[in-house]
Amino acid sequence: MTETRTLSLAEIEDLSFRALVAAGTSEESARALALATAATEADGVASHGLAYIPIYCEHVRCGKVDGQATPVLTRPKPGVVAVDAATGFAHAAIDLGFETLVPATREQGLAVLVIRNSYNCGVLGYHTYRLAQEGLVGLGFTNAPASIAPSGGAKPVVGTNPFSVAVPGSDGQPALLIDQSASTIAKSEVMKHAREGKPIPIGWALDAEGNPTTDPNVGLKGSMAPSGGYKGVGIALLTEIMAAALTGATLGINASPFSGTSGGPPRTGQCFIAIDPAATAGGNFASTVAELVEAIRFQDGAHLPGDGRRTKRLSARGHGVDVNATTLSKIEAILA
Amino acid sequence: MTETRTLSLAEIEDLSFRALVAAGTSEESARALALATAATEADGVASHGLAYIPIYCEHVRCGKVDGQATPVLTRPKPGVVAVDAATGFAHAAIDLGFETLVPATREQGLAVLVIRNSYNCGVLGYHTYRLAQEGLVGLGFTNAPASIAPSGGAKPVVGTNPFSVAVPGSDGQPALLIDQSASTIAKSEVMKHAREGKPIPIGWALDAEGNPTTDPNVGLKGSMAPSGGYKGVGIALLTEIMAAALTGATLGINASPFSGTSGGPPRTGQCFIAIDPAATAGGNFASTVAELVEAIRFQDGAHLPGDGRRTKRLSARGHGVDVNATTLSKIEAILA
Repeated sequence: MTETRTLSLAEIEDLSFRALVAAGTSEESARALALATAATEADGVASHGLAYIPIYCEHVRCGKVDGQATPVLTRPKPGVVAVDAATGFAHAAIDLGFETLVPATREQGLAVLVIRNSYNCGVLGYHTYRLAQEGLVGLGFTNAPASIAPSGGAKPVVGTNPFSVAVPGSDGQPALLIDQSASTIAKSEVMKHAREGKPIPIGWALDAEGNPTTDPNVGLKGSMAPSGGYKGVGIALLTEIMAAALTGATLGINASPFSGTSGGPPRTGQCFIAIDPAATAGGNFASTVAELVEAIRFQDGAHLPGDGRRTKRLSARGHGVDVNATTLSKIEAILA
Repeated sequence: MTETRTLSLAEIEDLSFRALVAAGTSEESARALALATAATEADGVASHGLAYIPIYCEHVRCGKVDGQATPVLTRPKPGVVAVDAATGFAHAAIDLGFETLVPATREQGLAVLVIRNSYNCGVLGYHTYRLAQEGLVGLGFTNAPASIAPSGGAKPVVGTNPFSVAVPGSDGQPALLIDQSASTIAKSEVMKHAREGKPIPIGWALDAEGNPTTDPNVGLKGSMAPSGGYKGVGIALLTEIMAAALTGATLGINASPFSGTSGGPPRTGQCFIAIDPAATAGGNFASTVAELVEAIRFQDGAHLPGDGRRTKRLSARGHGVDVNATTLSKIEAILA
């Protein structure tokens, strides 16, 4: 059994903040990351919560991310907010961008935030969630080092590139939150099987010639299987266009790895489109969304995207989160 | 062997126009549909080309679409163009909307066109293609009567809901054009197997209890399998939010069928977001897109989305298109 300790969300945030600052991160960047880390733990996405704090700290120390970077905002057009993350953390760049994106969206009806020279933004749905909390539909895209091959090919050309959409609800939580990668399974799952010496199921990854494999190490040297075949490649390409080509960020084929300490900053990108339903839907938005959500939620056995995280989030606010004790020891070592 | 006749694109357009007008369509709506029909035949998507003209004519006659409708445009915010298709053809509504969307995008950096009270828009990629021809990245969404069940459920809640993205290229054609539905296979393929009395492969459709079936008639009474499982449901939901909830259109669960003559107008919706890369990408867009496209096109055996249609399109301009003779007879009967 894994040993755990129960922490409140405030404790998770505080611990994350102090570790990041101790590693050389600016207070502003550390605050944005610490808030995201607590929210991610609350949502039950432990793989991207506190477990990432030692990695972030290592990346500040080795220069894969500039912990002291100051993101720079420009507004080239009324509907466009552009942020150069300056090889710093994505979270600080997104925070800065959202400060302008939200009012711009209310003025224009929709607006886009494009971020270049950025870094892994953690759970993409954390960011679109915040747009939904403002009453806006939030669409998000983020690219990653190439790991998916094109249809018919074998050499990776796009990352597992997730997209997310968050839809405002009427009870203070998103009515719907979708956050999914373009691959059948997260790359971190294949890496975990490799570390544990376990085979992976057919359909998760392909070898360097594009053939199915059950060996995680062979898969990691080959490519990740796209979800639904060529249609998964299409999703990954959509995200690459939105998050890299349209933002002026680095393509997945040129980006340095998100993991490990070599290669310098990945300089990947994020793109968020925010839309004000009050401007587009003629007053019917909330009732239409409620009808769609109810058709799913009240169907026997059916799963509404976002409901899993929602339930955990509401519970975590009252009861805190059970956190892996080994992860906590690693973070406490950074503070020692 | 299927008997065919070779028609030029001008002949396809003229024939389509005359048949639609003969059935009671206004010249403006007929022109938009005829142009789209010729372009769709040029792209080799015969299932949505001339074969649809007799269906469109029947739908005008039975009132599923109002052939004389005049779409109405409003601009509630600088970045939002809204068109009420007034239960007329989607093509005329989209044409009207694009006239304002394109200059709005150049002013604002991005803009959105939302269309309600609409109809089946044919090949979605035809419309995003036209945005790419203007030098804009075009994102498109269109919803359809519900045929995909939620994850874990069995009752359809969303249509096969395609999305499309078209990316401007440097040679007068899109660099990349993705146009894909959320289901494993088009519903029309299952209907074709049902007509021909042939079984369908496992993985195309599910029975009314959500179990796999090889009987196309059972599948049509059940649901279409989403591409990649729950992730295909996520894509269909994204499109439902964009094309129905955000536009003020009718949800797929409430829409009348696109096929047959009963139920009146489907009143479904379309949503197009156009983005000006000159405003967002800081001058690097064309070279970044070219690098991504070349990484795919020059990889042995790899398929670049849009290249198939592109090759056929360039050939059709010089050589015309081989058209099914039975389809031509049906259209000539409308004109007789």
